[in-house]
Amino acid sequence: AISMRLVPPTTNAMGMYTLRQLHLSRAKLKASSRTSALLSGFAMVAMVEVQLTHHCRDKEPQQAHLCSNVPNVLLIAFSVCTTLLVAVHLLALMISTCVLPHIEAVANMAHVDSMTNLNGATADISESPHLTMHRYIEAAWSFSTVLGILLFLVEIGLLSWVKFLDYSRSAAVGSTILLVPTVLLFTLFALHFYWKLVAHKVESADKNLQEIEAQLRV
Amino acid sequence: AISMRLVPPTTNAMGMYTLRQLHLSRAKLKASSRTSALLSGFAMVAMVEVQLTHHCRDKEPQQAHLCSNVPNVLLIAFSVCTTLLVAVHLLALMISTCVLPHIEAVANMAHVDSMTNLNGATADISESPHLTMHRYIEAAWSFSTVLGILLFLVEIGLLSWVKFLDYSRSAAVGSTILLVPTVLLFTLFALHFYWKLVAHKVESADKNLQEIEAQLRV
Amino acid sequence: AISMRLVPPTTNAMGMYTLRQLHLSRAKLKASSRTSALLSGFAMVAMVEVQLTHHCRDKEPQQAHLCSNVPNVLLIAFSVCTTLLVAVHLLALMISTCVLPHIEAVANMAHVDSMTNLNGATADISESPHLTMHRYIEAAWSFSTVLGILLFLVEIGLLSWVKFLDYSRSAAVGSTILLVPTVLLFTLFALHFYWKLVAHKVESADKNLQEIEAQLRV
Amino acid sequence: AISMRLVPPTTNAMGMYTLRQLHLSRAKLKASSRTSALLSGFAMVAMVEVQLTHHCRDKEPQQAHLCSNVPNVLLIAFSVCTTLLVAVHLLALMISTCVLPHIEAVANMAHVDSMTNLNGATADISESPHLTMHRYIEAAWSFSTVLGILLFLVEIGLLSWVKFLDYSRSAAVGSTILLVPTVLLFTLFALHFYWKLVAHKVESADKNLQEIEAQLRV
Amino acid sequence: AISMRLVPPTTNAMGMYTLRQLHLSRAKLKASSRTSALLSGFAMVAMVEVQLTHHCRDKEPQQAHLCSNVPNVLLIAFSVCTTLLVAVHLLALMISTCVLPHIEAVANMAHVDSMTNLNGATADISESPHLTMHRYIEAAWSFSTVLGILLFLVEIGLLSWVKFLDYSRSAAVGSTILLVPTVLLFTLFALHFYWKLVAHKVESADKNLQEIEAQLRV
Amino acid sequence: AISMRLVPPTTNAMGMYTLRQLHLSRAKLKASSRTSALLSGFAMVAMVEVQLTHHCRDKEPQQAHLCSNVPNVLLIAFSVCTTLLVAVHLLALMISTCVLPHIEAVANMAHVDSMTNLNGATADISESPHLTMHRYIEAAWSFSTVLGILLFLVEIGLLSWVKFLDYSRSAAVGSTILLVPTVLLFTLFALHFYWKLVAHKVESADKNLQEIEAQLRV
Repeated sequence: AISMRLVPPTTNAMGMYTLRQLHLSRAKLKASSRTSALLSGFAMVAMVEVQLTHHCRDKEPQQAHLCSNVPNVLLIAFSVCTTLLVAVHLLALMISTCVLPHIEAVANMAHVDSMTNLNGATADISESPHLTMHRYIEAAWSFSTVLGILLFLVEIGLLSWVKFLDYSRSAAVGSTILLVPTVLLFTLFALHFYWKLVAHKVESADKNLQEIEAQLRV
Repeated sequence: AISMRLVPPTTNAMGMYTLRQLHLSRAKLKASSRTSALLSGFAMVAMVEVQLTHHCRDKEPQQAHLCSNVPNVLLIAFSVCTTLLVAVHLLALMISTCVLPHIEAVANMAHVDSMTNLNGATADISESPHLTMHRYIEAAWSFSTVLGILLFLVEIGLLSWVKFLDYSRSAAVGSTILLVPTVLLFTLFALHFYWKLVAHKVESADKNLQEIEAQLRV
Repeated sequence: AISMRLVPPTTNAMGMYTLRQLHLSRAKLKASSRTSALLSGFAMVAMVEVQLTHHCRDKEPQQAHLCSNVPNVLLIAFSVCTTLLVAVHLLALMISTCVLPHIEAVANMAHVDSMTNLNGATADISESPHLTMHRYIEAAWSFSTVLGILLFLVEIGLLSWVKFLDYSRSAAVGSTILLVPTVLLFTLFALHFYWKLVAHKVESADKNLQEIEAQLRV
Repeated sequence: AISMRLVPPTTNAMGMYTLRQLHLSRAKLKASSRTSALLSGFAMVAMVEVQLTHHCRDKEPQQAHLCSNVPNVLLIAFSVCTTLLVAVHLLALMISTCVLPHIEAVANMAHVDSMTNLNGATADISESPHLTMHRYIEAAWSFSTVLGILLFLVEIGLLSWVKFLDYSRSAAVGSTILLVPTVLLFTLFALHFYWKLVAHKVESADKNLQEIEAQLRV
Repeated sequence: AISMRLVPPTTNAMGMYTLRQLHLSRAKLKASSRTSALLSGFAMVAMVEVQLTHHCRDKEPQQAHLCSNVPNVLLIAFSVCTTLLVAVHLLALMISTCVLPHIEAVANMAHVDSMTNLNGATADISESPHLTMHRYIEAAWSFSTVLGILLFLVEIGLLSWVKFLDYSRSAAVGSTILLVPTVLLFTLFALHFYWKLVAHKVESADKNLQEIEAQLRV
Repeated sequence: AISMRLVPPTTNAMGMYTLRQLHLSRAKLKASSRTSALLSGFAMVAMVEVQLTHHCRDKEPQQAHLCSNVPNVLLIAFSVCTTLLVAVHLLALMISTCVLPHIEAVANMAHVDSMTNLNGATADISESPHLTMHRYIEAAWSFSTVLGILLFLVEIGLLSWVKFLDYSRSAAVGSTILLVPTVLLFTLFALHFYWKLVAHKVESADKNLQEIEAQLRV
């Protein structure tokens, strides 16, 4: 009877796979919540602290330092990009705040289970919300990392135009020239990583299936 | 006698369900407290740091850069929205500060219990305040995540009007056009999530009841 | 002899009650210390960063944007409220810094005890400072949560008057109209929570007494 | 032989007392390091961000808003108080950074010992630097909490004079009137707490001595 | 059978080596993510908060304090360096956010395994993404520490030119003179550390191979 | 055979000594990394946010509030000191980011070892990089605590000169008078602490040697 207790029910391959997905979801939500807070925080500070000046209407040289030549289109792009950036990260934050507590609760229970070696452990995990909420968790993670970071790069580019246009057009141009390959590089990395992940998931699910089969045969 | 010690009293389904609710409440309060601190912190900084200028009374072109055309209604909306936002998050923070210590104390005791395998464990948890305080905990969580985040989106919209109106009306309009579908999307997500949660809770309570029945039969 | 070791001395009801009070005190002090740091931090930043301008003495329209109509009474109220707010939270912080280390040390020792199952454990906890320092801990908690948060709401109201009075009197009025019911709501919640807590404590102490009696009878 | 392993050498009263002092020192240093970082951080920001203006030399009414009536003595007091505050907290921080790693290392080793039940545990702890560094640890704690917090209250008072003197003398006076009883209250609390602590330490050492005697007799 | 459980499958040298690489990758990603957030945060604040003024066109002495002599080339360098710095750290942050959750999940599973002594542990770790993602992890680490810190030093140098050029050319020169040997020192340290690491890795892999051989022979 | 497993190989004095050095190095690097981030963060903010004004060339009294009398030498000293301060802390941060992950990985492995009681534990620790990297770890710690904190005190002194010189020369003098004994006190403390540490290390190594000898004799 004692040996039965020492080998917990989580040792079958199915339970391990579920528990692993649980830890993965929790780690993803935590990481995306941290990144979202950091990036949206900066976007908001940038919007509050950027100094705007009136558009130059009359070409008076003595007031040249009191007006700005930033075109209207640039301000619209800056305003829309900031709002989109904050909204994307806020959505990720909201999903994290809603889903994370449920996952934390299940993970803590699984920890207690692995301590007390309870029979009902596998049942407990399989009813976890990280399976029914799967689409939201993936959405939070994608929004926060991929779209959020790409938008942030665009925000940096727009900000450097708003900041430098009146003083040095070449500085804004230089910054943009640098950003175009960077955005391409980021997109390529994201696609490559996504492709690797899918390949890894297929392979891992395959191996898992074989293990379950092997267990059932024995 | 030793085997009795190794199987702690928390292993019956009733104790597990109570313990799970405890961990869920704690995780919710922690998450909502973190989000509240972040969002109210930004709202306060925005109110202190935003630069206001006097309303333009006389249409003198040479002082156009020293006065503002922001209408009175906008300032009222901004002031009321900021106050409401800070108050909502402060209420969530106060509830968290009051209720969280009691839950932490119970959770720590449950951890010690699961180590020392004490008989009185189940009794200890069922007298926990997370049951009598249930309404406050739910209120803190809802206020912080749902109302707090929606108000924050409105705040971003109002702020972009206060900031951009004098320089580019189209920038403020563009930001607002983006926010209207976002607020709708957030409300839809919140309702959908709430509906899923209620469905999950009913199902989970049902399964739990069956387990208790099964245990009582044996 | 081995079974004696496996059942630690903390398992009698008296030891459990003492240990629970210890964890509650620690959680309260930690929560109030975090809240105090956040709120006093904002109050200090608000005092340093708020822009004051000279009182308008001569009604010259061309210098209207360089002087302020904020009355003297408002500045006094703002200055006194900020100082009181910082002092209240600093007092809570000081008590936390003084008392928390002693409680942490006892809690860590109790953790080691529960690992090593030492005989002297109960004696060790009962000599803990959280009993002799009880009044200070309660004071820190009340000051930080109740008085501190109420003062903070008043501070927000005063700040919105100082910020908006020169530009839009209605904005300041609107913010105040919102704050009056909020302060009432907070006070009601605090009283209700205090009443519930006292009721819970009486009931819990009663049950505890009965357990001790039951143990002594056996 | 197995029972010898299960009863670790830390169970004699001498080892427990040493281990407790170790945990107390660590908790004190951590708490004082957190408080020091917070308070010195604010003092530095206040010094960098405060806006100074030239002393009014000629009583020209049209430049009244460009000069200040803050007396020289006040600026000296503000500058000296800020420097002293930063130096006090920096000293506490330096002591913490030097001493804490040694205590952490010993505490971690003690944790490993309590896991592996090693014979040499007591010897290992008694050679810990928290005994030879006792005076520095106490100095860091006192400086950070008592002197640091009192100086901070004085800093708040001086800052409100520098900020409000030109706009409303009564606001500065009101803030000072509030601070005088607060400083007295803080000093009284610190003395009362110190007295209680000494009394507790004498009593605890006495009880400890009796336990050691009792053990030696057996 | 019990002794088989007590000796987990991770005890063979191959499993230990894999587990060690896992912990190393996790620690590297965590450290580089912390450093990236800190340094990119400052670079962004510096770009938002730096005050630019128009280039002096007409040599009018009375407006000398309203225009700047900072050359166009310096502004371009500053803008490009800031963008590059933010992009490098953002790339490191993105890789961390993508890869870290997978490693955390595997590490948590390995922890559970070492608790429950499961047979499939080694298999579980060897399918970990830290092996297939090896190149990305190394890239994140190198980008964040080496290139990121060197770029930051250059940023400090450019910032001191932008800040001090109009007021004291010698201050900017002095800062640059100090930075040149520092950058050289940093590059030397990085190369030396890299060399040591490669040497250590070769030696460690060699020793590991011998252990595996020794195990196979027995 | 079971008793052999219960006494892990780390129990010999040599393994304990190595493990202790490992924990000490980790604690030192963590503490110095925290301090470095705090102090360099402030130094950078101070450099970005300090307001500079043009040197007064013509002694016109009506523009006295638009120019500054800060001498060129002071600006050079301020610029050089800030750069040096940031470089010193950045070097400490870089060493921490490079070395800490290796130490964390070894410490985590040692923790797993102490759980699983593996034979190869001592060998694993002795090949740890904290021995070959010893000089870098010591350099990081010394740079961060001693040189970094002394430079920071000098920075505070220079900053108070830059800030107060135009408004009150006595305030800057007062601050300097206070700093001279403080710097001396800090240097004395650092030397005294270093002396104590060396004495403690010699004594501890001596005792350790005797233990190893005693073990070899038995």
